Amino acid sequence: MLRLLTVTLRGFKQHKTPRLKFSTSSVMAKSKFEYVRNFELDDTCLKNCYIVVRLDGRNFHKFSDQHKFIKPNDNRALGLMSRSALSVMEELDDITIAYGQSDEFSFVFKRSSNWFKRRASKLMTHVTSQFSSSYVFYWKEYFGEQPLLYPPSFDGRVVLYPSNQNLRDYLSWRQADCHINNLYNTTFWTLVQKGGLTTTQAESRLNGTQAADKNEILFSEFSINYNNESPMHKKGTYLIWEMVNETSTKKINRPNEAETEVTVTRTRKKVTAHHCDIIGDQFWEEHPDILERD
Amino acid sequence: MLRLLTVTLRGFKQHKTPRLKFSTSSVMAKSKFEYVRNFELDDTCLKNCYIVVRLDGRNFHKFSDQHKFIKPNDNRALGLMSRSALSVMEELDDITIAYGQSDEFSFVFKRSSNWFKRRASKLMTHVTSQFSSSYVFYWKEYFGEQPLLYPPSFDGRVVLYPSNQNLRDYLSWRQADCHINNLYNTTFWTLVQKGGLTTTQAESRLNGTQAADKNEILFSEFSINYNNESPMHKKGTYLIWEMVNETSTKKINRPNEAETEVTVTRTRKKVTAHHCDIIGDQFWEEHPDILERD
Amino acid sequence: MLRLLTVTLRGFKQHKTPRLKFSTSSVMAKSKFEYVRNFELDDTCLKNCYIVVRLDGRNFHKFSDQHKFIKPNDNRALGLMSRSALSVMEELDDITIAYGQSDEFSFVFKRSSNWFKRRASKLMTHVTSQFSSSYVFYWKEYFGEQPLLYPPSFDGRVVLYPSNQNLRDYLSWRQADCHINNLYNTTFWTLVQKGGLTTTQAESRLNGTQAADKNEILFSEFSINYNNESPMHKKGTYLIWEMVNETSTKKINRPNEAETEVTVTRTRKKVTAHHCDIIGDQFWEEHPDILERD
Amino acid sequence: MLRLLTVTLRGFKQHKTPRLKFSTSSVMAKSKFEYVRNFELDDTCLKNCYIVVRLDGRNFHKFSDQHKFIKPNDNRALGLMSRSALSVMEELDDITIAYGQSDEFSFVFKRSSNWFKRRASKLMTHVTSQFSSSYVFYWKEYFGEQPLLYPPSFDGRVVLYPSNQNLRDYLSWRQADCHINNLYNTTFWTLVQKGGLTTTQAESRLNGTQAADKNEILFSEFSINYNNESPMHKKGTYLIWEMVNETSTKKINRPNEAETEVTVTRTRKKVTAHHCDIIGDQFWEEHPDILERD
Repeated sequence: MLRLLTVTLRGFKQHKTPRLKFSTSSVMAKSKFEYVRNFELDDTCLKNCYIVVRLDGRNFHKFSDQHKFIKPNDNRALGLMSRSALSVMEELDDITIAYGQSDEFSFVFKRSSNWFKRRASKLMTHVTSQFSSSYVFYWKEYFGEQPLLYPPSFDGRVVLYPSNQNLRDYLSWRQADCHINNLYNTTFWTLVQKGGLTTTQAESRLNGTQAADKNEILFSEFSINYNNESPMHKKGTYLIWEMVNETSTKKINRPNEAETEVTVTRTRKKVTAHHCDIIGDQFWEEHPDILERD
Repeated sequence: MLRLLTVTLRGFKQHKTPRLKFSTSSVMAKSKFEYVRNFELDDTCLKNCYIVVRLDGRNFHKFSDQHKFIKPNDNRALGLMSRSALSVMEELDDITIAYGQSDEFSFVFKRSSNWFKRRASKLMTHVTSQFSSSYVFYWKEYFGEQPLLYPPSFDGRVVLYPSNQNLRDYLSWRQADCHINNLYNTTFWTLVQKGGLTTTQAESRLNGTQAADKNEILFSEFSINYNNESPMHKKGTYLIWEMVNETSTKKINRPNEAETEVTVTRTRKKVTAHHCDIIGDQFWEEHPDILERD
Repeated sequence: MLRLLTVTLRGFKQHKTPRLKFSTSSVMAKSKFEYVRNFELDDTCLKNCYIVVRLDGRNFHKFSDQHKFIKPNDNRALGLMSRSALSVMEELDDITIAYGQSDEFSFVFKRSSNWFKRRASKLMTHVTSQFSSSYVFYWKEYFGEQPLLYPPSFDGRVVLYPSNQNLRDYLSWRQADCHINNLYNTTFWTLVQKGGLTTTQAESRLNGTQAADKNEILFSEFSINYNNESPMHKKGTYLIWEMVNETSTKKINRPNEAETEVTVTRTRKKVTAHHCDIIGDQFWEEHPDILERD
Repeated sequence: MLRLLTVTLRGFKQHKTPRLKFSTSSVMAKSKFEYVRNFELDDTCLKNCYIVVRLDGRNFHKFSDQHKFIKPNDNRALGLMSRSALSVMEELDDITIAYGQSDEFSFVFKRSSNWFKRRASKLMTHVTSQFSSSYVFYWKEYFGEQPLLYPPSFDGRVVLYPSNQNLRDYLSWRQADCHINNLYNTTFWTLVQKGGLTTTQAESRLNGTQAADKNEILFSEFSINYNNESPMHKKGTYLIWEMVNETSTKKINRPNEAETEVTVTRTRKKVTAHHCDIIGDQFWEEHPDILERD
């Protein structure tokens, strides 16, 4: 807050000038009104559970049309989502992994986190706020001269997961969702863009088909092997903290010597992006620090 | 969401090509993981209560220093806050009045609102998100070429008020808080900027003083009558919906006649900003539509 | 609690005897385990709302059969319900009105109540517990030698009502429910007991009938005017606090005088039972103290 | 509930007799009032967590004095507590272990339980109600001709534990509490009953002492080895479900044979009471079914 001090004023001296009237009543008023504070209810999250905050774009179907997002996947838009998520991870404590796809992003706070005393409202509004302001702030980095037409909005929610298995299943659920949607969207837009179908025709062509059918359409009609599609589109993006070696060169001047260049390597904790499978065990075995003991 | 259709895939045809393996397991996986949905808890707000969402800037003391906000009040910053609040009111339904001061803004949803089924998380994250993205989006309109250094963050909370009196007392509490802080800040910065005191000296000079003392300091030492200060600084800003007459001129061309100009007046519901007292009865008598019958 | 003192033990003296081993580990253990306290979540009720605790009998259809309750209304059972409710009102603070019918009872705590810091769990379990133990305790007063076969159970819930109108509508809802059920049950059991129908026949006879039809059946076939039925059965029972004059006689002995008897009248606050309409305004005009100002 | 059918009445036939007026308005009233139902808020417990309901006696210090409970432990009172807890376990589903000491009892619902849809209010009120009515119902079995003076009350609460370790720590916490209180109470009442101290003197004697000191007082002054005290008093009582062999004799009559007696052994799931340590691992290794996989 911008205030310098919280001033509590008691009593009030007599004074002649009329200009003081307002102040008196205001000060008295404040203590009289302060009881309304107690209407705020506690919304502390149960301890020893993973806290997941998931964001979803509001009216993003319309937003993506108005901003001419490339179908089925716009790398600029996906990049901006991940950039905003990175900003959330760097600003807020205790997020160990984030997962994003399409217009949604999930942030996982470690189960022992005591950030903001685990108050659900603080956790979800801070994540949503940081993400939303970052989305506008970094727009230009991803969309260049194409203007952002209006400020977008995201909604957020908090969900708790008591066990490691529950958390892994949550992240698997979102990645399986990503896969299913992306296979559908890839086939749909291929039918439209390369096959010359209208969107209505494409929709009806895909009605009732299963994963194998869509793979087959892509492969036999358009020579597209879905497995070779971009991992980012098929798997989504997850962000984790990793130790990264950073190499820089430093110029050193010593008296009576020629200037020399030295290579310095520092190890730093940094957020890194990945697009591989998180449903199987391999990822979790390679990153044992993300989950805490049940 | 960006998905075209939610596709539920049952069963799976035999197929030879290895590229299908992933799809099978993914689809099967999704239904296996979907149980995690049921961990989301309901947070519906009690009916027939006013829903207040209040936002506060995070680390805005530092933010205002880094962005060289004018002390004690920066009209650009206050204007941007109100502009962002206007964006919230125009985008989200059922907000009847909003009140802002310093780096905080409160939004009041009508007690009969059923927006987002009264789910607290949806209400507070949408308000926070719209406000945060607007703050960045409209920054340039208020700060011109002075750059925004990083995306700012706001936290939000939901508080319910069951009666008209409780709601009025809430808004009065915030306005009384505005007055007390502004009187303090005005006196403090006058002592520093015009009186030549250091901030430490000013703080110690004001230590223990009451409203009357601060008025007296301003009046006798600096010839400032606090009552003549800007209403926006003393009272804060509230936004309400009002019927506004909008006049425009229209050119009319009729055959065989010279072009004529006609003045057209339309009445439209619009958000208007005010800075007067809302503690007394006058404001509420003049705007009987804001409160609903208890 | 039965403990005399809560003892916090820090440190531990060296000692030779093996019998102390257990104690040491136990004491150390307690502080090690105490963190589990913090898993308890706050469930404070929103301020300035009426708190209603409603109890319902569990499996009372079966319970009433096993205890041979008279159909359609057993005055012993209804009396025992009211006696138990009286016990709740006398033991717990801040209940201003209670309303019961059939196997349910609602208790209304005043909106300004701060009993048990308005914690929902404390409020509902104390009401349920006091009611349940009273039901067994007073059974004999109402059922005499007919034994209670097993301990019955009631479930409870808390519902908040923000306005006087909401609370009145809640109580009206329960009384309208009482009327509709009682009219149905009265007609049903009259058809069975006096009309000689089986329960299946009676059910099918009443299927699709409206209130007027049931009145007509009672009147034309059995000469029963439903309006003359017992108010307790038609309206249920509500309990309120009233000032009651209690008259007692006291024997006075003064020296040198014959013993005299004096009549003493004292006014005392007491719970009284009523069976009149609470849907209309009359009751509320006659008892202005039950509702608090909105 | 006692109602036979929930009857929804729509419309209303014209009719001449005045006796129908009430019914009409009542029926119309009910649908008009029914909106109050929606003020009830959801209080579902987070899935995959153990649900613990803990009961505590209200004003049991006074209750135990008025009913002349033997100090420091009254086996009749402890037996009645356990009998009431048994009644809870037999009536309510999904409780796998209960632990009691003094005037408190904790009931653990399995983490996968879906009893009453995991609604906290239903869970805690049903446990409290069944326990309270059982306490009165079984009083005579434990206290014989000594009358129960008034219906006692218990409060209840719900606490969730996400992991096996958390649940074990909860139960360990209560058992450690039992030990500490019982050691204090045993020493205190020995000083009073055998040492001739007043309660004030005993309190002051024990002020600041640690477990070892109390053991020493008992041993050196009264030749009491605390370790030989009753396990029920030192450890409390826990109830679990176990497979129990029940042997009964049956008389068999076959034609042309003399009546023979046959011993029949049946294995049945039954609640059994224990008083051993649950802080260490042994108990949990011997009863692997109580905890579910994390």
